Order: sequence, then structure tokens, then C-alpha cells
Amino acid sequence: MLYIIGLGLADERDISTKGLEIVRKADRVYLEAYTAVLLVEKEQLESYYGRSIIIADREMVESSSDEILANADAVDVAFLVVGDPFSATTHTDFVLRCRQHEPPIPTRTLPNASILTAVGATGLSLYNFGQTVSMVFFTDDWRPDSFYNRIRENADLGFHTLVLLDIKVKEPDLKAMARGKIIYEPPRFMTVAQCASQMIEVEEARAGNVCNKEKLAIGVARLGSEGEQIVAGTLEELTQADLGKPLHSLVLCGKTMHEMEWEFARGYAVDQAKFDEIWKRDYGIQK
Amino acid sequence: MLYIIGLGLADERDISTKGLEIVRKADRVYLEAYTAVLLVEKEQLESYYGRSIIIADREMVESSSDEILANADAVDVAFLVVGDPFSATTHTDFVLRCRQHEPPIPTRTLPNASILTAVGATGLSLYNFGQTVSMVFFTDDWRPDSFYNRIRENADLGFHTLVLLDIKVKEPDLKAMARGKIIYEPPRFMTVAQCASQMIEVEEARAGNVCNKEKLAIGVARLGSEGEQIVAGTLEELTQADLGKPLHSLVLCGKTMHEMEWEFARGYAVDQAKFDEIWKRDYGIQK
Repeated sequence: MLYIIGLGLADERDISTKGLEIVRKADRVYLEAYTAVLLVEKEQLESYYGRSIIIADREMVESSSDEILANADAVDVAFLVVGDPFSATTHTDFVLRCRQHEPPIPTRTLPNASILTAVGATGLSLYNFGQTVSMVFFTDDWRPDSFYNRIRENADLGFHTLVLLDIKVKEPDLKAMARGKIIYEPPRFMTVAQCASQMIEVEEARAGNVCNKEKLAIGVARLGSEGEQIVAGTLEELTQADLGKPLHSLVLCGKTMHEMEWEFARGYAVDQAKFDEIWKRDYGIQK
Repeated sequence: MLYIIGLGLADERDISTKGLEIVRKADRVYLEAYTAVLLVEKEQLESYYGRSIIIADREMVESSSDEILANADAVDVAFLVVGDPFSATTHTDFVLRCRQHEPPIPTRTLPNASILTAVGATGLSLYNFGQTVSMVFFTDDWRPDSFYNRIRENADLGFHTLVLLDIKVKEPDLKAMARGKIIYEPPRFMTVAQCASQMIEVEEARAGNVCNKEKLAIGVARLGSEGEQIVAGTLEELTQADLGKPLHSLVLCGKTMHEMEWEFARGYAVDQAKFDEIWKRDYGIQK
């Protein structure tokens, strides 16, 4: 059996007690470490779980999964995933390959906390969210703005948008590669401030009044951990916000943001008077 | 400190190890038991946690929360919530009242699995979902159809819709009440079949081609538990599906349902040939 076990969001103790029992008994334990990361190192997991853990990078999961699945029709293999297993398409694809494997590998999935619902800690109702979008690091020659249309679809319906921020782990250094060496760049995690800046930049080019400087937004960092941090303000204010260590996410508020959502979120405002003024002027609209 | 601890979806062992430590040390332990229910009885939780648990019904949480919060600025109180704490607005409101309490009660929330992401077990990508809707039990004189407009908003954008199904726990028996007695009706949980029937009924009245008999949908039951069950088919087929014990939910598929989603979901189809035919005819549309 392949057990795909969600680890939740923060540290080694967010695993369920059911998940921990499986990890302790499994024949081999893998940790998928490229679609998301925990806030603690692998060694801390190993010490708490009492097991050594094999890191599964993108190449291993997407191209060499035979190694992970070896003998998994006969023995139990634990495949650990940060957050909730099905929050990344790559794990759905992985389960599909297990089904099509010869012999088929039975799978069982243990759900856990995901940023998609933990974002409710902002006070925004999960029922008022539209589709989730991703924001990638802009480079000099690659500044994809397809997120803009998706946010606009949500905004037209008055919905909030959760924006998931890019992480780069184990990215090859292209210059070193050109010299025939494989060196990995240090990991990078997009901040709330970087995301807010990129949104404003695209708004300036597209001018659709979707994510301009005065839109209200909420930045979150390390949700579900003891050091979680939440900052609310205009997108412009958030370009100056420092939410500390990764992981960060951002929510752009939709026009229907109702009174209780506002009352909760204003507790996190950089400038409460400004937050209140803009909310009263532009938000709280009933559909 | 008031700890609001998500229990996940299935049984007593879906709590995180961090949550369990808090429960074991807390001064008092409450279980919120009206917005959702676990698949096991309170006694099973008490035995595994080694603590006695006080059931908090709607009246206690929404009107008499002083009892729960008594002394919580000085001692630790654990408030257990099925699923993820912020998936129900009532818990957001509860945190807000803690902040406004005199003296203020510090809170900490431990996220956990929610149906909102566990539904990824269907193979449908969470990034292709629009807003979530709720379906209540129709009665002779109350057949609310506001869900229809919300599903249409999603459908217009090609999105899937997660439909959460009504549960009735501790509902007063109105006839007994009229005789001055307080008797509670036995708990009721809507099934996938009932939901599919209600959707088709409203479609017949509204005729907007939003949830007619031939739309593809996926019913799920007891997600995250060992006995989880998933059935895919047309809405008409799902009116005949028996997914057994609660809790059930239903997903209405959106037109953008892409190839990998189809390939995964067809594994659960009542009638695979029909599922394939309809998908090829009406779905897989690129935005």
C-alpha cells in the first residue's frame, strides 16, 4: 500500500496520530519536498517520527517514481506531503500512475490542513472565495500576467482571491549548467511584498481596476504555526510589509467582503483608519 | 488560552499530535457538534484522548459562550471542531468574541483537513473549483433555490462546484414543542441521491441548463476514512446511488474538466461508457 500522508502546514507535530502510526511502521518513508515546504528541517521530522526519510524531488516523483513504488503492492510505503495531498495536481497524477502500475499499487490518502482553508484565519469566509491563483517570480524576460484574468473573474463576482506565492527549491544554476556543472541555487520564497508589487505592476499595464494600489488585501505568513503573522492593508501598503520568514500567501479582498469579515480583518490592519475608510467606500457590497 | 483545534474528517485519530498534547493538558475540553460531525461517537474520542468532553451545541456556542470562555484568560481551554476550524463562519465569530471579551481571551487555532480540500480525492483539481454552495433539505413549503444562481456563476466560468449537504442534529420536534415538550428529532444527513434529486427538480423549474440530468457529477462519502466511497456519473444516475452512511457531499463538474481529471474520475463511474461519451461531448473545454 502507498500511503500519501498530509503533514499539515507548520512542523513535525501537525501530522495526525493516525499518520504517525503509519510512518512508524512503513517499510520506507519519502518526503515530497518541491511543491511546498514545512517550516522545519528534515532532521527534525526524522527525530520526531523515529524514522529516516528519503527526500523525493520533482525528478524522482514525476519521472522516476518506480523507485518510490518498488514493491509497494506488497509492503507499506509512506509518501509524506506538506499540506493536504490533493492540493497539488502532481499527487493526483501520482495516484493515477499507481492505479495504472503493473501490478496496481493500492493507495490510501490521509488529508490534512491546507493553505486553501487555513487562510480562513484572516477572518474572510471561505464561501466567499473564488478560484485560487498562483504568482510566479517575474524575471527580466518572463512576467506572466495570466493571473490577472483569473482575479478579474473572481472580482467580477465580488469574490476574494487566494494568491499562492512561488517557491524555488533545488533549481539548477543555469550558468553553472552551461559550464557542465550541476549546482543548485539557494531556495527562494516569494514574499507578500514582492507579490503585491508584481500585482500593482501588472495592474498598471492592464488598467482594468482589478488590483490597483488601493485594493484591500491581507498577507499571511507561516499560517498554523505559533509564529503565524497576518497583515491587512492596501496593496500599496503591503509592498512595504515585512512578514518575516516563509511561507507567505496573499488574499486580495473581493467587494462582497461583509461586515464580520471586515471587523475581523481590521484587527490586522497596518493603518486601521485607512482600512476602515476604504472598506466603507468600496466594499461590503451585497450581491 | 482558547485553543480551537481542528479534528479532521473521520475519527479520533485524525487530530494532530500537537492537538492531542493540548487536549490532554487542557483544563476543559469542548466538542462543537452541530456544524459537522465525526464518523465516531463522543465516547470513542474520550477514550482515545483520555479526557471527558463537553458537547457544545449551537445554543451554547452562539448564545452562552461565557461558559466555554470562563477563566480562559488564565487556564487553557480546548474547543474541538470537526474538519478545519475556519471552514464554518460561526468559529470566526467565536474568535472575534474572544478578542472583544473583557478581559480579552487569547486564541490559537490548529488547522486540519477540511472537506473543501479533501474533495481533491475525486481527481478534480482544487484550482478548478469556484465558490462552494450549501444544499438544505427541501420541505413541503421551503424549497430554497439560491444555490442555483451560485452554481451558474461557477458554471459560466467552467468551474466545478462543491455542494455541502445539510445535516440536522438536535433539531427540536416542532409538534412536541407546541405541546410544551422539548424533544429532539433524530439526526438526519442528506445523501448524494437526495441532493442530486433536488438539483434536478430546481433545474426543471429554472431551465437554465445548469444542473440537468445529463450533467456529470461526483458523489463522495466519508472522505478521509478507511471506508471512503466515491461514485461518478450523471446527476440522474446519482439520484439512484447509495453511498451508505454519512457524511456525503457532491461535486458538480464544470465544463473545463480536463483530461487528467476525467481519467481519474472515470475510475469511479457508475457507467464508464456513458461517462466517457458525455465527457467527450460536453466537457474538456479550454478557457
